[in-house]
Amino acid sequence: MGAALAAHQFQGDSRPDFDDAVRQAVTKLRTTRPTAMNLFWALDRMEKVLDAHPETTVPKIREELIHEALKILEEDDAICHQIGKNGQSLIPDSANILTHCNTGGLATSGYGTALGIVFAAYEAWKKIHVYVDETRPLLQGARLTAWELRESGIDVTVLCDSAAATLMQKGMIDCVLVGADRIAANGDAANKIGTYNLAVLAKAHGVPFYIAAPISTFDLSIPSGDQIPIELRNGVEIAEGFGVRTVPKGVAIYNPAFDVTPQRLISAIVTEKGILKPPLKQSIREVILSK
Amino acid sequence: MGAALAAHQFQGDSRPDFDDAVRQAVTKLRTTRPTAMNLFWALDRMEKVLDAHPETTVPKIREELIHEALKILEEDDAICHQIGKNGQSLIPDSANILTHCNTGGLATSGYGTALGIVFAAYEAWKKIHVYVDETRPLLQGARLTAWELRESGIDVTVLCDSAAATLMQKGMIDCVLVGADRIAANGDAANKIGTYNLAVLAKAHGVPFYIAAPISTFDLSIPSGDQIPIELRNGVEIAEGFGVRTVPKGVAIYNPAFDVTPQRLISAIVTEKGILKPPLKQSIREVILSK
Repeated sequence: MGAALAAHQFQGDSRPDFDDAVRQAVTKLRTTRPTAMNLFWALDRMEKVLDAHPETTVPKIREELIHEALKILEEDDAICHQIGKNGQSLIPDSANILTHCNTGGLATSGYGTALGIVFAAYEAWKKIHVYVDETRPLLQGARLTAWELRESGIDVTVLCDSAAATLMQKGMIDCVLVGADRIAANGDAANKIGTYNLAVLAKAHGVPFYIAAPISTFDLSIPSGDQIPIELRNGVEIAEGFGVRTVPKGVAIYNPAFDVTPQRLISAIVTEKGILKPPLKQSIREVILSK
Repeated sequence: MGAALAAHQFQGDSRPDFDDAVRQAVTKLRTTRPTAMNLFWALDRMEKVLDAHPETTVPKIREELIHEALKILEEDDAICHQIGKNGQSLIPDSANILTHCNTGGLATSGYGTALGIVFAAYEAWKKIHVYVDETRPLLQGARLTAWELRESGIDVTVLCDSAAATLMQKGMIDCVLVGADRIAANGDAANKIGTYNLAVLAKAHGVPFYIAAPISTFDLSIPSGDQIPIELRNGVEIAEGFGVRTVPKGVAIYNPAFDVTPQRLISAIVTEKGILKPPLKQSIREVILSK
């Protein structure tokens, strides 16, 4: 959509200038997130449209780009619904689900991945209660996920990230359900900082730990999560996250945006092609090759 | 000091009215924290002064109360220094220590418990780097601990609570060092929410998990942590913690102020009487009875 917007906003009829403008937008978007995989997948698709029609006029190629963006939107929506459909079988009735960050309609084209599974389970008339980590530092859980769930009429409780452990200790969580930004060939998965924490807790408490992600999140070019680049963000997000200084000046801040959960802690990965179960490496190979 | 302040502020010379005023302050302070044990210990000592001198005049009993408060201050300071001295042997040179919440001069009479050990190790010329969880929701780590360490010239890095897992995964933490609000007879320890999370992580990564607390924190009347009352606080601390609404209206909030770490996850408890090591129940019995 960002590339389509650049195409839409371009004025003039020089095709080289048009290509420059669109590729500039693509490059800008590409550098916003080193970790996220299906961002690159979508941007690659947009660039391929440019490459495939080098001689086309500006109005025509603009139309092609907007058409491709709308196609990605539609496909992503269908993929999310299929992930929801596939994954909801994992959710028992009267489930207490713990989630982290946002994986709903605000993070995808409109239904969600991990949250898509919640919606699908709810639509299948299951009773659902979702515990949502507020997700420091940017509070996507508190601000986005809690809002989406409330709007959908699903019971939701927000907690500080560090309180998830005590919920599991009390036996109040039936499963953890999160998204992923990039999944390596062996199943190691990068996701919002705090996800690995939940995976360790889930393992220690015998709680299933599920990831939901489209096939476009898999990066088979890297054998393990060690090779996933992790975005380190500005410490000011922690020090002045709400317009109020909460960390004294002169103090160092560690602010990684993601962490990597090793495959051995993942109970299943739900994709639009089906549910991948351990051994994940083998399961990933089978599903991706069958695509 | 709160009781001494009430004594100081009382006007008049009726001893029954004086006792009412002081006991009212004591009751108010007693109900501020159901979980914290050595708060009760200090308040009990102040009430015992009233009980022991029922016939004394107001000026005289006021003096006695202020004297007792100053004695508690001095004793606590000495206890903290002894905890520091005892505990610093656990800290290797060039240590990366992870801590949570505040256990320093701002939380005690002036030196600290867990942070007292950090100060003592630093004073023993050890190279120290402290990673401090910001400690949601009230950010005592970011606001108090980071400030105390910076003022002392000790290297300090603040992180979101959920990022501690990734630090341990990378092998960047040599030990976890925290305080406690109440410790049961078997060694189960209540402390700021998020502490149990760190204990699970430490166990999973083979990192030692140390608690520092004075003997007055032990509650031998309860056999295990299940009996420790946990204060549930107002959700507004999470929803509007920075004067900015971050949780949508109408969403439930779970805000326990403490959690309980089971004794099996604790590598040692440092007290002024020495270092208690597993089996903790036996070690506690020996140390407390030897008092």
